[in-house]
This record gives sequence, C-alpha cells and structure tokens, in this order.
Amino acid sequence: MSDKLLIRALKGERTRPTPFWLMRQAGRYLPEYREIRAKARNFLDFCASPGLTVEATLQPLRRYNMDAAILFSDILVVPHALGQEVSFQEGEGPKLKALCGKDDIARLSIEQFHERLEPSYETLRQLVFAIPESTALIGFAGAPWTVATYMIEGGSSKEFVKAKGWAYRQTADLERLIDLLTEMTAEYLLMQIAAGAEVIQLFDSWAGVLPEEEFRKWSIRPARKIVERLRARCPKVPIIGFPKGAGALYEAYVKETGVDAVSLDSTVPLSWAAKTLQPHAALQGNLDNVLLLAGGEAMERETKRIINILGEGGFVFNLGHGILQQTPPEHVARLADIIREAG
Amino acid sequence: MSDKLLIRALKGERTRPTPFWLMRQAGRYLPEYREIRAKARNFLDFCASPGLTVEATLQPLRRYNMDAAILFSDILVVPHALGQEVSFQEGEGPKLKALCGKDDIARLSIEQFHERLEPSYETLRQLVFAIPESTALIGFAGAPWTVATYMIEGGSSKEFVKAKGWAYRQTADLERLIDLLTEMTAEYLLMQIAAGAEVIQLFDSWAGVLPEEEFRKWSIRPARKIVERLRARCPKVPIIGFPKGAGALYEAYVKETGVDAVSLDSTVPLSWAAKTLQPHAALQGNLDNVLLLAGGEAMERETKRIINILGEGGFVFNLGHGILQQTPPEHVARLADIIREAG
Repeated sequence: MSDKLLIRALKGERTRPTPFWLMRQAGRYLPEYREIRAKARNFLDFCASPGLTVEATLQPLRRYNMDAAILFSDILVVPHALGQEVSFQEGEGPKLKALCGKDDIARLSIEQFHERLEPSYETLRQLVFAIPESTALIGFAGAPWTVATYMIEGGSSKEFVKAKGWAYRQTADLERLIDLLTEMTAEYLLMQIAAGAEVIQLFDSWAGVLPEEEFRKWSIRPARKIVERLRARCPKVPIIGFPKGAGALYEAYVKETGVDAVSLDSTVPLSWAAKTLQPHAALQGNLDNVLLLAGGEAMERETKRIINILGEGGFVFNLGHGILQQTPPEHVARLADIIREAG
Repeated sequence: MSDKLLIRALKGERTRPTPFWLMRQAGRYLPEYREIRAKARNFLDFCASPGLTVEATLQPLRRYNMDAAILFSDILVVPHALGQEVSFQEGEGPKLKALCGKDDIARLSIEQFHERLEPSYETLRQLVFAIPESTALIGFAGAPWTVATYMIEGGSSKEFVKAKGWAYRQTADLERLIDLLTEMTAEYLLMQIAAGAEVIQLFDSWAGVLPEEEFRKWSIRPARKIVERLRARCPKVPIIGFPKGAGALYEAYVKETGVDAVSLDSTVPLSWAAKTLQPHAALQGNLDNVLLLAGGEAMERETKRIINILGEGGFVFNLGHGILQQTPPEHVARLADIIREAG
C-alpha cells in the first residue's frame, strides 16, 4: 500500500496531519491560471493541450502544497469523445447539441474515444514526474447520470425536465445511454490509472435531483458497476464517490456502491456522517465554498469543527463543492495553514 | 378538533382516504388562471386584488376538489410590506432593491405592514365562505432565511454568496434582519389565522443551501420561534414546515422546531422518513413535480408507493415542490384519481 497520506486516509486510516485538496483547486481564482488560460482559443482546446493542463494542475500545488493533484479537465470531454458537439462560451455554461432519442444515441461513436481523450492521458503521464513525491495524483470523470443530463438537456438545467422525462417516459433510451456512459467511463478511468492516476473521483454533481428509486437506478447502480470494473483490474486504487446533494441517500450510496470514500457536500451534518457513513467508507469534505470565499474567523472555526468530528476516522479535508472564482487566493493559504495547524 | 380530513392527518391521524393538495396548485398551468392573470398589470398587483386571488385559489378546487385551498399570494409580499422595492418582470425572477447592511435594515418599516398585507387577509376572509365545507384553508409565509436571501441578493441566486456572506461575516446584520422577519412573519401568520386560515405552511425553500450550524441558526431557530408564537395564541392550528433540500437535517428540523408536520422534497427517501421523521411529525409530500409533468405509468407507480409507505401514519399527499408551468392539467386530474382510488 502506498504510504502517501491521502491514500492512507482514503483507505480508512486515521492520519495526522489531515490530508487535504480542494475541488477546482486549479482555476480562475488564481491569476497565474487566468494568464495561461488566455493562451487557448476556448476551454475545450485548453483541456486538450497537455502543456497547459499540466501547468494548470501544478499551479495550486506551488502555492499551497496540497496532498493531491487532480487532472485538469472537464467532465464533458466524455460526450465530446463520443462525438457529441460540445462547446463552452465565455461567461455562459457549456452548450451541447442535445440528444433527442435513440437515433441520436445510435449516432454516438466510440471509434475516436481514446484518441480524443489522449490529452488527459498525456497530462497524467507528465504529472507523474512533475508532482512532489508525497503528492497523490487523482484522475476523475463525471458519473453517468450527471454527464447524461448535459447530453440530454444540451447544457446546464434548473428543473431537469428533459433528463428526468427520459427517466420517466423514455426509460429504455436512458438505460441505453447510461449503459454506454457506464462502460466508457470505466474505460476512461482505467486508462487514466494506466497513465498514472493513483486515486479516482467520480463526480455525480446532479445526483441530488433524483428521487430515491431513480437515484438507485441512475446514480447508485452505474457507480457500483464502475467500482466493480475498476476493482477487478486495479484493486489498490481508491475510489471516491461524490453524489452531491444526496441528503439521507448518502447512506444507501455508500453501502451499495462499494466506494472507498465519499465526498460530502456542505449540507451533510457532521455527526450524522461520522456515525452513519464513516463505518463504511472514508469521508471527504465539506467546508462551504462560500465560507472559503468569506474567510475570517467563521472559516477557522468551521474548519476545526470539521476536522474534530470527521478526523476520528479515515478523512480527507476538502470543500463541499468547487472553489468559487471570486475566492481570494490568500484565503486558500490561510485555510491550508489552519488544516496543518490542526495537526 | 376539526373533522376536516387534512387537519386530522396533520395532527398525526392515519386517515383514509389520503388527503391531498399540491404546492402551486393555482397557477400558470391552468388556462383559466392565465386568463384572469391578464387582468392585472403585474404579479404584485394581482396578489393585491382579492377579487382575482380568491378566484385563482378556487380554480383548482373546481377541477380537482383538493382537500385544501391555499391562499394565493407570494412569499415576497413580506419584504414589500416592510417597504423594500419588489417587482416581478414577466419571464424573469423577482427583483428587489438589495439590502447592503444595517442602514438598509434600519430603513425597513413596519408602519404600513398590515395595511399592505390587507389583501391577503381579505382573500382569506372571502375564501372561508367560498370553499367547500370539507376543504381546509391554508395560510402561508416564506421562512425568515428564505425571505432574507431574496432581500440580500436582490432576487434569486445560485451560490448565495451575499446572503451567506452576511451569515459568515456580517452576522449581527443577518441576526437583526432574521429577528425582524421572525417577528413580522409570526404577526402576518397570526393575522392570517384571524382571517380564517386553519393551517399554516412555512416555506423555507432555500434551507437546503445551509451547512449544519448555519441551518440551526437561520432555519431551525426562527421556525421554532414562529411555532412557539403561533402555538401560544392558536394551539389548534397545525403548522407545516418545509425546509426544502435539508437532507439528513430534516431530522433535526422536525425534532427541534416543534412543527406538527413536515413537507418532504422529492429527494427524501420514504422508508427513512417513515422511520426517522414520522414518529415526531405528520408527513407531507413528495411526488417529483417533473413526474407529474411526465405522467403515465411511472407517475401511477410512484404515487402508490408514496401512499403505501408514508400512509401508515399521519400523511398528506403533495408534490416535493410546486407544479411546473408546462404540466398538462389532465395529469393533475389523473393524479387526483389515483390518490382517491388508493383509498
């Protein structure tokens, strides 16, 4: 077993100090990121340029020396690799040419899948040598349900009328799409591991809009399949699941997917998580990203409270969601100090 | 005790048939609503016209004969009654002149409070005589935290950076605002009861963005105060709390606020709710509003499942959130039939 702090914690060991990394730790809140971002025409081109993504991944490590580096990429490179049109307009969300039904699913193609994802693999291969020795390298993908919502809605959504409409009225179509995404996401993650990823995080950012039964079908079941595929081939690589907003369903997710660790959004109560979830999986989380933006004493107090309660078992400090663009970099520096001082 | 079905269920009695009403049961999905809506210049004027709001409240009852009528109004009539500028633009969310700090709070005024809310009271007084004898009349208000987010953000929000910023860095200002809203919301609800409301629902639509400690401060504590105020004066009026998106924190909400009943959003798992919450409060909910829009067999199956599991104790069938505008009225008719057939 690796002796890297992050990996030990994800395997359930109570470690001191508490390892930490921050979702979206590389990105727009850093001036040095904004500088290199300007070198690519658009965000997809940026993600496809290992010279830039390696640098973006390393930037926050130089400032804050997190215990993990995470591949700089986006969950929507997967639909793009399947041949769907994807674009990112400055200041807007992503736009996709929405799938309408089974004919559109049939037109998706896996022929260029790994070729189009080669920049992610190359980024990881370079990072293996570029990151400090004690830093763990995290690969990731969007979970099938979350990626499917973008593919069906054609972008972000508020009510998820189309994606849930498939769940309720075009169930066979959604099953076909989710099966394809489950299969190809597992492939993608296995290739990331082959390229050097030592930990995997599966982001199910929109799991929290699904009622119980749908949650089991579209979030838990695909996650379990991906976990089984990865386990069979790479039993030592810890897998972190992140069913954001799952509420009381975090319990079913942890017990039924088999993930090594689960990432908690900021609304998950700590004592409940320690009691209900931590016996089954290591925990990661869950400082409110707005509290990191706000900073000050409230941030210090809450950071210590989180470490005190969750740090009794396997635990990785993180946010409950990605760093906000307006976050002052000095607040991140202060947070890193607080975590280290907490021991 | 009233022998109205809804009130018996809210007091914890297992009733057959299962009473039901639907959040936003009056509104845009009904052609007859769109017709009368056109008679007012804007939405606030509509809410201030008892001739129109009484009719809007009655429209869904004529079609579907729900067990409850709910005052037609909006949670933002309260900031308006406190003197804040509020407007609703067609097709956009509400706009308010955002509060910036304690000077703006000091400029809020309670002088015209009840005068500005008189149309709500008049609507209720007329409804008492206009609704069928077996129908219960529900009054409502936004919970202090949810109303405060609109007052601070100046409208809807995605990240709640300003409102949470107050919680974290301008705590004294937020306390002052929440105290004022708690006090005046209790006043408003007591006047609604005096005007004929037999049940109260407190909508905390944005409770689900608060981490545990903040949830206790800004959602649970004000709700408890309002419950205590109402209980002291009107002990027989059942109070339904709706901390939408509270996840595992629903448990603390139910145990610590003292509400008679709690409304569940669609993501709350049924068995967990039956076991954890129902011993302490009656339950209301929680069909996915997108499933009502989708209709069909999936809706029928899920409706029966909800009634089977939650109907073992005090239970009112409802949605997990308001009816969506695109919902076909015939789906609502079908839903009403399914609920009645379920017995």
